[in-house]
Amino acid sequence: MCELLGMSANVPTDICFSFSGLMQRGGGTGPHRDGWGIAFYEGKGVRSFHDPEPSCQSRIAQLIKEHPIKSLSVISHIRQANVGSVCLENTHPFMRELWGYTWVFAHNGQLDKGLFDLPLNFYKPVGSTDSEYAFCWLLGQIRERFPERPEDLAALSDFIHQCCEQLRALGVYNMLLSDSSLLYAYCSSKLSWLTRRAPFGEATLMDDELTVDFCKETTPNDIVTVIATEPLTDNEQWTALQSGELVLFRDGVDQLHLTSNAVAAD
Amino acid sequence: MCELLGMSANVPTDICFSFSGLMQRGGGTGPHRDGWGIAFYEGKGVRSFHDPEPSCQSRIAQLIKEHPIKSLSVISHIRQANVGSVCLENTHPFMRELWGYTWVFAHNGQLDKGLFDLPLNFYKPVGSTDSEYAFCWLLGQIRERFPERPEDLAALSDFIHQCCEQLRALGVYNMLLSDSSLLYAYCSSKLSWLTRRAPFGEATLMDDELTVDFCKETTPNDIVTVIATEPLTDNEQWTALQSGELVLFRDGVDQLHLTSNAVAAD
Repeated sequence: MCELLGMSANVPTDICFSFSGLMQRGGGTGPHRDGWGIAFYEGKGVRSFHDPEPSCQSRIAQLIKEHPIKSLSVISHIRQANVGSVCLENTHPFMRELWGYTWVFAHNGQLDKGLFDLPLNFYKPVGSTDSEYAFCWLLGQIRERFPERPEDLAALSDFIHQCCEQLRALGVYNMLLSDSSLLYAYCSSKLSWLTRRAPFGEATLMDDELTVDFCKETTPNDIVTVIATEPLTDNEQWTALQSGELVLFRDGVDQLHLTSNAVAAD
Repeated sequence: MCELLGMSANVPTDICFSFSGLMQRGGGTGPHRDGWGIAFYEGKGVRSFHDPEPSCQSRIAQLIKEHPIKSLSVISHIRQANVGSVCLENTHPFMRELWGYTWVFAHNGQLDKGLFDLPLNFYKPVGSTDSEYAFCWLLGQIRERFPERPEDLAALSDFIHQCCEQLRALGVYNMLLSDSSLLYAYCSSKLSWLTRRAPFGEATLMDDELTVDFCKETTPNDIVTVIATEPLTDNEQWTALQSGELVLFRDGVDQLHLTSNAVAAD
């Protein structure tokens, strides 16, 4: 299994604090030694870093921890390999362009062999992970259903939810997906989120001896949501997503929740 | 105008030395202050860094300069903006997936408005540069002509050359393009290359006070080709590509040259 970390915010925000916690799990407090990656949106552009080395030893990870890169939308992943060898092309997050947007994707879990029967149309995996295959299939499905970027976010979200449900039927499928302004979080087994907004307080990382007083780091209008496989702090109230739940975040706010039952009722 | 830097090698080689020279041109000895980027292949995977800040001040560029990342194929670019604002999504190199390979592209020059009449099919630009548009068109053309990866490299190279010639007719089009093992260099106005192999000697950078004795850094079988907008060293023999010339490098060796006349004779 792997660890996911995502962020959605309404003002450019650095993720140094949460990333410090996640990094420790990459071979430090956790077993996820098989590489890590992070993608930061800046406008429609993406700055990404990938490293097949354990994050707790990575010099690039150290740079990111110390060098605040501010973003409205971030997806990060540290890996404990199951399907696919440990190499750069198997390192999340994966990226593809659709509608002139760079989509970023990371997956936690494992999907069974039936996945590889799902037909690929437009996108082909570069590496050999089940995760990248699932991403190529998912984005190809979206592209086929919506040749142009739809105005109707509810329709798009509903379709993405249906595809995620199909993938969840094949195993464990926790996912983060973003196009720059939208951040989708889908839960199969384990994913939690937390929104920080005024009045800001202190937060203490579980995995690193670090406390931040967000009051000093923020303005009263800031809204910042962090999504992670497991809560990163032990003195804040995290919300666990339900199995089969898709949440759409934009500007740090949860805009839309789709649950498994809602789809079943369609 | 911008500066291009490419490398093709038969053993994983770091590009620290050449990159040190290029970096200085990013707002130091040169006027190219509008961002920089670099992509390193590692197998079929790509490690890329993009920064809209001048390279000579960039902390990430500093990390790359000091932290040797070894690769068989590298493409780098520093930018002096003409078309498209200075922002991350307009920062080269650009990347798209085709046939399960990540293609990396960088362009030096400027293309006139007629470019935007060329029809896009599969790939859409994320930013607003003429360069990314040209890349999306080029890769879309390749995809249409070769739905599967062709075994016949001569046919592929010939087709890429024809597309490059079409682009050159629209302005200045110097290009580096790679799929991981192949590195294409196409010259419209300015591009030079140099192959280092045994017996290795010393090289002195023009733009930085740095001399490297490659004899100490290499084994006798190493072959390393460097391609750059302008020669980076002043004590080695660089070869200038002709206008309309496409060279295909693999494992550090120039495998194939196509010139403008050769195409005219087809």
